[in-house]
Amino acid sequence: MQNLDSSFQALADPTRRAILARLALGEATVNELVAPFELTQPAISRHLKVLEGAGLITRRIDGAKRPCRLAPNALSEIDQWLAMLREALTQNYDRLDQVLAAMKPEE
Amino acid sequence: MQNLDSSFQALADPTRRAILARLALGEATVNELVAPFELTQPAISRHLKVLEGAGLITRRIDGAKRPCRLAPNALSEIDQWLAMLREALTQNYDRLDQVLAAMKPEE
Repeated sequence: MQNLDSSFQALADPTRRAILARLALGEATVNELVAPFELTQPAISRHLKVLEGAGLITRRIDGAKRPCRLAPNALSEIDQWLAMLREALTQNYDRLDQVLAAMKPEE
Repeated sequence: MQNLDSSFQALADPTRRAILARLALGEATVNELVAPFELTQPAISRHLKVLEGAGLITRRIDGAKRPCRLAPNALSEIDQWLAMLREALTQNYDRLDQVLAAMKPEE
């Protein structure tokens, strides 16, 4: 529960989603993220902290650098939860299909 | 962008996710949601307003009632965005598989 809260919260910000989209292309350091985003290093670091806290990215130590990447299981809990809703929506469509199919003979 | 912000923001609350899970079972009125959630009617109404604003639920007018249901396209924008990340993660796994496959002959 707590994790879903923080994951969805982290995804609710356009800059953080853009950072994830950049990391989808491959690992990056804070400095490599500063230029394209036109944000200060502290601002980028704050966003990375939120993403890391939500389990969406991981960081490794490479000398003085701490490159970030997408966490391998970043989406698993979110996907699991959304799958439940998606299934319900599909079932609703199926019921609609049945209703429509049942209506046809009466035309 | 704005819509993804509000969708993810709406999903970041456990009560709102629970309301969506309830609506996945079928339409419900505010009063029908009050009992299982042990919340006041104004509290439920506030959550429904957030969910409706985020495009996750729709409400229809039925006399004095305003029953809620999951919006048919509730997840389409979210799914589209997550699909991009998911694909990137899959490609990362594929690269890992290639690296592991390349290592085997050397064992």
